Amino acid sequence: MQDKILNVLPLSETQQQLFLNAASNIKQVFCPAPECKGFWQVPEEVLEDTTILIGNLHPQQVSRCKNIHWLQTWSAGVDAYTKEGVLAKTATITSANGAYGQSVSEHAFSMLLALMKNLPQYVQQQQQTLWQDAGATKSLENARVLILGMGDLGTSFARLCKGVGMRTVGMRRTLSTCPDAFCEQYPIAELETQLMLADIVCMTLPQTPQTIHLMNEKRLRLMPPDAILINVGRGSAIDEDALARVLHSGHLWAAGLDVTQVEPLAKESALWHAPRCFVTPHAAGGNHIPQTQQRILEIALYNLKQYTAQQPLKNRMQ
Amino acid sequence: MQDKILNVLPLSETQQQLFLNAASNIKQVFCPAPECKGFWQVPEEVLEDTTILIGNLHPQQVSRCKNIHWLQTWSAGVDAYTKEGVLAKTATITSANGAYGQSVSEHAFSMLLALMKNLPQYVQQQQQTLWQDAGATKSLENARVLILGMGDLGTSFARLCKGVGMRTVGMRRTLSTCPDAFCEQYPIAELETQLMLADIVCMTLPQTPQTIHLMNEKRLRLMPPDAILINVGRGSAIDEDALARVLHSGHLWAAGLDVTQVEPLAKESALWHAPRCFVTPHAAGGNHIPQTQQRILEIALYNLKQYTAQQPLKNRMQ
Repeated sequence: MQDKILNVLPLSETQQQLFLNAASNIKQVFCPAPECKGFWQVPEEVLEDTTILIGNLHPQQVSRCKNIHWLQTWSAGVDAYTKEGVLAKTATITSANGAYGQSVSEHAFSMLLALMKNLPQYVQQQQQTLWQDAGATKSLENARVLILGMGDLGTSFARLCKGVGMRTVGMRRTLSTCPDAFCEQYPIAELETQLMLADIVCMTLPQTPQTIHLMNEKRLRLMPPDAILINVGRGSAIDEDALARVLHSGHLWAAGLDVTQVEPLAKESALWHAPRCFVTPHAAGGNHIPQTQQRILEIALYNLKQYTAQQPLKNRMQ
Repeated sequence: MQDKILNVLPLSETQQQLFLNAASNIKQVFCPAPECKGFWQVPEEVLEDTTILIGNLHPQQVSRCKNIHWLQTWSAGVDAYTKEGVLAKTATITSANGAYGQSVSEHAFSMLLALMKNLPQYVQQQQQTLWQDAGATKSLENARVLILGMGDLGTSFARLCKGVGMRTVGMRRTLSTCPDAFCEQYPIAELETQLMLADIVCMTLPQTPQTIHLMNEKRLRLMPPDAILINVGRGSAIDEDALARVLHSGHLWAAGLDVTQVEPLAKESALWHAPRCFVTPHAAGGNHIPQTQQRILEIALYNLKQYTAQQPLKNRMQ
C-alpha cells in the first residue's frame, strides 16, 4: 500500500511547502483543524488511506485509521496513543520531545524568581494601593538549586539558573556524563541528603510509579525552612495535602506549582489559599512562545527526511 | 588633631574587629543605632571629636561635627551630604556605589520575567481560584533588551539578561570600551532609533536635568506595541501621566516600576490601576539581600586601608 501522510499541524503555506519538499514522492494531505484539549479532529473522509500521521489527531479518530504505521506527535508525551486499541503495536510513534524545554523552563525560572523577590505579595499590595516593603528577599547569586530530572526540561532550566550565577545540582536515576548546565549531579537515591542542602528544589519529573508522592511530608520537612519548591513536571509527584500543611506550619519560603495532581485544581483544594503558594494553570508548556511550534516543525521535518531516506527516526517512543 | 572614627554601621563583633585591624592606629568608636528612612541617629556625646564618619548619620547630626574631613556612606547616593551646611566643602565624601547593583538588578530582572510570563495576572486569578490560561507569553531567548545607563545597576542587569540568552544593548552619554555584559552599545543621543528596535527597555538612570521625563509620550509610543518597560533608576525619568495613557490605549505589553516620581506613590495616581502596570515600593535596593551589606563593608574596609596607607580612596564623590 502506498504511503499517504495526513498532517494536522497548524501550518503556513511556506511551512507546508517545507513538508512537501521533505518527502516529494509521498502523497501529503494538510488538514489543520480546531484544537480541543491538545487534540485535533478532522472530517472523517480525510482519514482514508492514511499511513503516516503528523500531529495529535484525536485518539478515537486514530483508532479508525487501521493502516497507520507511523505517528509523529505534536506533544512530548505519547500516553494517549500507547493505550490499548488506538494504534497497532507494530506502529512507530515518535514524539516532539525537546520542543518544550525552552517554554517550560522559562516559566519555571520566572516563577522561581518572582517567589525569591516576594512579587506575588507586591501584586496583591498593589491591588490595595499599598506602598509597603515586604522585607528580605533571596539572592540568585550562588543559590543552590536541586533539579529533579535531567531531561529536556531539567537541563533547560539548569542552563537558565547557571547563567545567572546559581549553583545547579542535577538528580536522575542513572548517572552518565554530567551535562554542562549542571555543576554537580547525584543519583536520585541520594535525594534526602540533597534536599537538606538545597536553597531551591525544582521538579521536572514525568509521572511513573516511582515518582508518585515522591515529595511526601517527611521530605518536604527535610528542605531548609526558607527553601523554595517549584514543580513543572507532574502534579502527582507532590503529596498536596502534606504541602499545604507544611506551608501552613510556616515551613518553606514558598512553593510554585504549574502542575497539580488533578487538573484543573479543584475549587476546594487547600493549595489555592495556602500561604506562600503560587499556582499557575499548567501554562508553562503548550504553545505560549513561538519557539515551541518552530521546534516541533524542526523535529517533524527531520524525521520525515529520515523516513524518506530510510534512516532511523529520533524521539522514538514505540 | 588626632583622627577619631565614628562607625554607625550595624556590625557584628567579628566585623568590628575587621575595622579595628584595618586602622589599628586610629581611635574607633562603634555606635550602631536605629535606622530611620536610611539615616541613623546616635547620642550627641558620641559625636565629639569625630573626624571620620562611616555610615549614614543623620545630616543634622553631621552638621554638628565640625571636624569631619571624610565621610564613607552606606548608600550609593550622597545628595543628603552635599547640601549646603552639612559638611565642609573641603571634606571628602566616598559612597557605597557598587554595593547595590546585585540587589537592584535581581529585582528588575525578576519583575521583567514575571511580566513576560503574565505572572501578575496569574496571581490575581489564583485569588479567585480561577484555573485559566492567560495566553501567549514572551520568550527570553534573543529578546533585545535596551538598557539606559551602563553603571553598576545597568551592568549587573545586563549580566543577568545576557546569561539567559537575551541580546543586551547599552546606552550612555559617552561611549568607552563596551563592557562584556553588553552585546552592543550606543550613545544616548540615538535613543529614539533604539527604542523602536527594543523588545524590552530597562531604565537605570540617576536623576539629572537631562533625565527628567526622558520617556515622554512620544518616546513611549516609539517602543513596539508589545514591548516591556522597566524602571529601577529614578521615577522622574518617566512622564507618568503619559505612561498611564499609553497603557490604557493598549500600547506596550507591560510596565514594571520600582520607582515613581513621588514616593510613596500617591493613592490617587493613575499608575496603581493602569492596565499591565506592576508597581513595587522602591524595594529593589536597600538591605534586602545579605550581599549588599557585605559589599558595603568591603568598600568601607578597602577605603579605610587606603586611608591609613595614604593611598587614593574609591567612589570619591566630593
